[in-house]
Amino acid sequence: MSRIDGRTPEELRPITIERGWSKHAEGSVLISFGDTKVFCTASFTEGVPRWRKGSGEGWVTAEYSMLPRSTNTRGDREAVRGKIGGRTHEISRLIGRSLRAVIDYKALGENTVVLDCDVLQADGGTRTAAITGAYVALADAITWAQGKKLIKHGRKPLIGTVSAVSVGIVDGTPLLDLCYEEDVRAETDMNVVCTGDGRFVEVQGTAEAEPFDRKELNALLDLATSGCVDLSAIQQAALARTLGE
Amino acid sequence: MSRIDGRTPEELRPITIERGWSKHAEGSVLISFGDTKVFCTASFTEGVPRWRKGSGEGWVTAEYSMLPRSTNTRGDREAVRGKIGGRTHEISRLIGRSLRAVIDYKALGENTVVLDCDVLQADGGTRTAAITGAYVALADAITWAQGKKLIKHGRKPLIGTVSAVSVGIVDGTPLLDLCYEEDVRAETDMNVVCTGDGRFVEVQGTAEAEPFDRKELNALLDLATSGCVDLSAIQQAALARTLGE
Amino acid sequence: MSRIDGRTPEELRPITIERGWSKHAEGSVLISFGDTKVFCTASFTEGVPRWRKGSGEGWVTAEYSMLPRSTNTRGDREAVRGKIGGRTHEISRLIGRSLRAVIDYKALGENTVVLDCDVLQADGGTRTAAITGAYVALADAITWAQGKKLIKHGRKPLIGTVSAVSVGIVDGTPLLDLCYEEDVRAETDMNVVCTGDGRFVEVQGTAEAEPFDRKELNALLDLATSGCVDLSAIQQAALARTLGE
Amino acid sequence: MSRIDGRTPEELRPITIERGWSKHAEGSVLISFGDTKVFCTASFTEGVPRWRKGSGEGWVTAEYSMLPRSTNTRGDREAVRGKIGGRTHEISRLIGRSLRAVIDYKALGENTVVLDCDVLQADGGTRTAAITGAYVALADAITWAQGKKLIKHGRKPLIGTVSAVSVGIVDGTPLLDLCYEEDVRAETDMNVVCTGDGRFVEVQGTAEAEPFDRKELNALLDLATSGCVDLSAIQQAALARTLGE
Amino acid sequence: MSRIDGRTPEELRPITIERGWSKHAEGSVLISFGDTKVFCTASFTEGVPRWRKGSGEGWVTAEYSMLPRSTNTRGDREAVRGKIGGRTHEISRLIGRSLRAVIDYKALGENTVVLDCDVLQADGGTRTAAITGAYVALADAITWAQGKKLIKHGRKPLIGTVSAVSVGIVDGTPLLDLCYEEDVRAETDMNVVCTGDGRFVEVQGTAEAEPFDRKELNALLDLATSGCVDLSAIQQAALARTLGE
Amino acid sequence: MSRIDGRTPEELRPITIERGWSKHAEGSVLISFGDTKVFCTASFTEGVPRWRKGSGEGWVTAEYSMLPRSTNTRGDREAVRGKIGGRTHEISRLIGRSLRAVIDYKALGENTVVLDCDVLQADGGTRTAAITGAYVALADAITWAQGKKLIKHGRKPLIGTVSAVSVGIVDGTPLLDLCYEEDVRAETDMNVVCTGDGRFVEVQGTAEAEPFDRKELNALLDLATSGCVDLSAIQQAALARTLGE
Repeated sequence: MSRIDGRTPEELRPITIERGWSKHAEGSVLISFGDTKVFCTASFTEGVPRWRKGSGEGWVTAEYSMLPRSTNTRGDREAVRGKIGGRTHEISRLIGRSLRAVIDYKALGENTVVLDCDVLQADGGTRTAAITGAYVALADAITWAQGKKLIKHGRKPLIGTVSAVSVGIVDGTPLLDLCYEEDVRAETDMNVVCTGDGRFVEVQGTAEAEPFDRKELNALLDLATSGCVDLSAIQQAALARTLGE
Repeated sequence: MSRIDGRTPEELRPITIERGWSKHAEGSVLISFGDTKVFCTASFTEGVPRWRKGSGEGWVTAEYSMLPRSTNTRGDREAVRGKIGGRTHEISRLIGRSLRAVIDYKALGENTVVLDCDVLQADGGTRTAAITGAYVALADAITWAQGKKLIKHGRKPLIGTVSAVSVGIVDGTPLLDLCYEEDVRAETDMNVVCTGDGRFVEVQGTAEAEPFDRKELNALLDLATSGCVDLSAIQQAALARTLGE
Repeated sequence: MSRIDGRTPEELRPITIERGWSKHAEGSVLISFGDTKVFCTASFTEGVPRWRKGSGEGWVTAEYSMLPRSTNTRGDREAVRGKIGGRTHEISRLIGRSLRAVIDYKALGENTVVLDCDVLQADGGTRTAAITGAYVALADAITWAQGKKLIKHGRKPLIGTVSAVSVGIVDGTPLLDLCYEEDVRAETDMNVVCTGDGRFVEVQGTAEAEPFDRKELNALLDLATSGCVDLSAIQQAALARTLGE
Repeated sequence: MSRIDGRTPEELRPITIERGWSKHAEGSVLISFGDTKVFCTASFTEGVPRWRKGSGEGWVTAEYSMLPRSTNTRGDREAVRGKIGGRTHEISRLIGRSLRAVIDYKALGENTVVLDCDVLQADGGTRTAAITGAYVALADAITWAQGKKLIKHGRKPLIGTVSAVSVGIVDGTPLLDLCYEEDVRAETDMNVVCTGDGRFVEVQGTAEAEPFDRKELNALLDLATSGCVDLSAIQQAALARTLGE
Repeated sequence: MSRIDGRTPEELRPITIERGWSKHAEGSVLISFGDTKVFCTASFTEGVPRWRKGSGEGWVTAEYSMLPRSTNTRGDREAVRGKIGGRTHEISRLIGRSLRAVIDYKALGENTVVLDCDVLQADGGTRTAAITGAYVALADAITWAQGKKLIKHGRKPLIGTVSAVSVGIVDGTPLLDLCYEEDVRAETDMNVVCTGDGRFVEVQGTAEAEPFDRKELNALLDLATSGCVDLSAIQQAALARTLGE
Repeated sequence: MSRIDGRTPEELRPITIERGWSKHAEGSVLISFGDTKVFCTASFTEGVPRWRKGSGEGWVTAEYSMLPRSTNTRGDREAVRGKIGGRTHEISRLIGRSLRAVIDYKALGENTVVLDCDVLQADGGTRTAAITGAYVALADAITWAQGKKLIKHGRKPLIGTVSAVSVGIVDGTPLLDLCYEEDVRAETDMNVVCTGDGRFVEVQGTAEAEPFDRKELNALLDLATSGCVDLSAIQQAALARTLGE
């Protein structure tokens, strides 16, 4: 009893991570979770926002956006409407929190990294792809800064790894890494952000139709944890390649 | 080993629910979770937003806001800044989703209920107080509409009850219903929205410092589920009183 | 020949002033003019806006807002619309000017007081209730600052008292303190802000239908002056009570 | 003991009204109160705003604005800042109310007149010049509409005349029609809008320093009433000239 | 075969330049190209924007706007809509670039000139009239600053003259200085900004219907160059008059 | 005497056009002009904006934007700032006009095509790459619509081809297709939009330093015309390939 695209319930879509996709950014990644493609850049700058000056600590923040025609029907540009929608705000904040969970601000020093995650093509799971890709871009930006001596010798601002995946219950079956068509039909939808050692950074579950019980919640958490282990390995493999290959 | 305010770890703050707090709104409640006070109104109007016209189904939505001096330090008014912040957006969306989870749109018919949750005084847990209070205001608005024959005879738009509570780990101990001072010190912070029958509508857990493991997650879910059972009873008791008493 | 609510033409609605309504604000009041309820907070902060720095003088400003469902029909939130309406702007400015009329900026020193007046329930006269309540909150905030030695010993920033009331001509009869239903039917509508010694801070009269003549203007000014004498006494009585009683 | 510009206390500045200043607008006037110059256009269009459709009644509204360099120091453009300031809002509303006071909506029929009052040069009294000039532009627009048969035969939408003037107390002396330098020094500042028959449409008095007493208020009202009589005569003389002369 | 208004194809409309039209601005001009009237002010202030501080160089910028009823049909105010339209942005930038082309920033020193070009009446060619008038206002502002010793002795910030004109192909014939009616019918529309010595500062040609070929382009450039020679002479004649005559 | 990147003055950078880059859009292209990469989508929808309804004619419009880190230094997101900058507005309008020049609105019928041009990486010439790529996306969208019978049989909405290139004078030498480093140093900068048959749709030349004379203008036009001939061939070759290869 296979899924729309032939996967088993506990199978990720094909994941690809291309590093060095921008010649300008200190870290940059084009990540795909199946047909979902997100372009993640990490911009490293010296200095911190005003409220953090003199603290000796750095800052990491994120902005998420969808290109107008990344979806099946064209959406209005938020810049044209003059305001950012609630969903965009919510996801930008989630990405920022997730990445900050693996940062040692003291080790980063008074430097800022801005992660821009722009969805080029959406097919479900854009926020989880964004977090997973942004981690790799962030790692590259920190390596760059270490090479430039912008981070003190011996300091390691990155204290863990982080990846994310969506899970959901569709027609009563818990599924890993939902594509758009599955997402629309899911009774329960959950996004889970894990560290490489299997602990949780964020757990966000929503009943789209019927409320879910503890047993269903447990099944979803099992699936997500296992998916994040795989994503973590894919991230490490990507980072192990020489940039430019 | 008691808490700042002398509670045990699994104890709610004093909860009060005053119904009929507005002479204009179809449902209105002043809810307190200790020193957190949220004014919730439910505005019932005939008709639905344009995208839903002709569907025969209703709509429920929510807006959350904090008065500028509901907090210890005065915050800027979002109306003056001309834009709504990410946190406000996020919470408004959470409240809306939580209440929609117990609505039968067909039974509601082409009517709209807008829930306004304005924080008069904040001391942690404003979003969970807002959800818990908004449910009572919504119930009153629906009763009002039934009295006015705006809902078809025999239809029951409200298909369950919903309440919410925060839980968190402070100094290694899982605590129920955090006040502000505890919230600031929490390593992990979770907001849980449950139906009266103990199932989940929303689970949102965030690692503020260290990632949390499955055991900690389970402890928090246990606490929250039990807290929501109590909140549900308090809601029912409030609704059982005659309005105006 | 009595009014809608049984009052005589020169009678105020029941006025109540509850101080200490917020645990955060330096001064806070819930004021009622009949069914009109306004929550006024006074936020005292050290420092002044940039354009006033180094002047040795303080500043007092005000922001007025109506909760969306403070009125019979729900109004849009100005924060959601992204702009402040003309009426809100006009009333905020009026409140600020009225309170500044009784402030000695030099005695206040380089400190700022922001008065937030949020209408919880509206039934006519929201701006006059706001001014009358904001004065009490302001007085409490200044007493607080004196206690904290934020104002130099012996300095008295408050050089008078101020209250406000609406008057209008309804069916040819001048009436004091109009409720909403009277306000809608008024041919002429006037808001008068007076000091405790019976002088004028603001006089704003508007012909809603027929222009008004000098005789009518005089009758309205007489009514308003006398109403403000009563309001001033109510303010003093409120301030005479020990906070917390 | 004469004024800055040699006038007596009860003397208006030189007033000029040039009609037909725009080839596009249905009514247009360049009005000067001394060095204050306001360009007023009246745009007549068939139809009314949505909320008034089907009522058989017309609508009149106004927008006021200052060119950035109409003042001594250049001000930011409100369009560039993306929001309208409180003062602009307040004055636009005052102009609209003042002109609506002399309109019979039924006679106007479902037509709209928008009055644009743009200050080209400011030297005090811009709002009163705007009202006085807008009246003449409005009268011309209505005559134009009558000529085009857009108003039913025999209907007279204009049921009175309206003009406005500022008065104030400077160094203890009540003065008529303050220029900027006087306005800055005024202890009390009042704007009065009168009909041609000497009744009041708006009275807005503000204590800029000391509160004012009833006697001072009376002196100011006397001055303003007399000033409006003169302005009304100047308006009638302007309207008596053939357009284009 | 003459034009709508009787001109020959290579004839400008009557051009008038009135200097000293504002008592506040350091330079000010009311310029007419036939029925197109633009009010141009040059505001000279000491200091430069933050990004230019310490450079020893000045800055010149421009803002263009149309009064709502400068056109045949009233347009919305951009301040009311809360955003500046694309056309306004485009023209403001064009005016700024055009004037900066004749400025020596070093000679200007750390001073800023803002050119405000407000269209009082539009009949085609508003941007070219704005540039031509702004040049004269700018020249007057610089003369004023030299008189006030705000520019170092012997320094000449103005290194050339600049004027602008529109050209277009209407019914196959290249025409100089299009009025609105011609502009609407033009197949190709071009705005050309020239220095007094006949060189180009800006060339902006647009095919409104059919693309244009090199021969047509050449004919338009010939017309424009010759028109700018005439405009330059008119500017010099205006500047040769004593201010106030 | 070669250029920074070794090209001759009249040589384009390597141009690549990848079609079918989005699975959602009716037409989509990733175009590169050297290191400048622009993602262009064409969204075809039935229906037209309100002002065009019932005309029987279609509409084509464009929106241009740069990703925040498409440039060397990260720029603010316009959505976050809440307003669109002048440069963005100007380029969006240019792209729209350029593409409309080759559209027969009648043949298109009441359908709309929106062209989104998002710059993924910028190295000079982003607007010309956008126009050149958008043409290909537009052609694909129209072919798609013809296949879906959304365009009447036999109608050809595309009446020509269009491409664009920048030219400029750097150190006295006219150069084709400037990269960023050349663009910054250019004395004169021109963007030229041509049809496939060598005629002009837009010519926008700007003196960045010294004004330019007719001879220089002619040299630039020669270069640009020839560059557009090459670009047109590259477009045709791209369109000749089967989509998906």
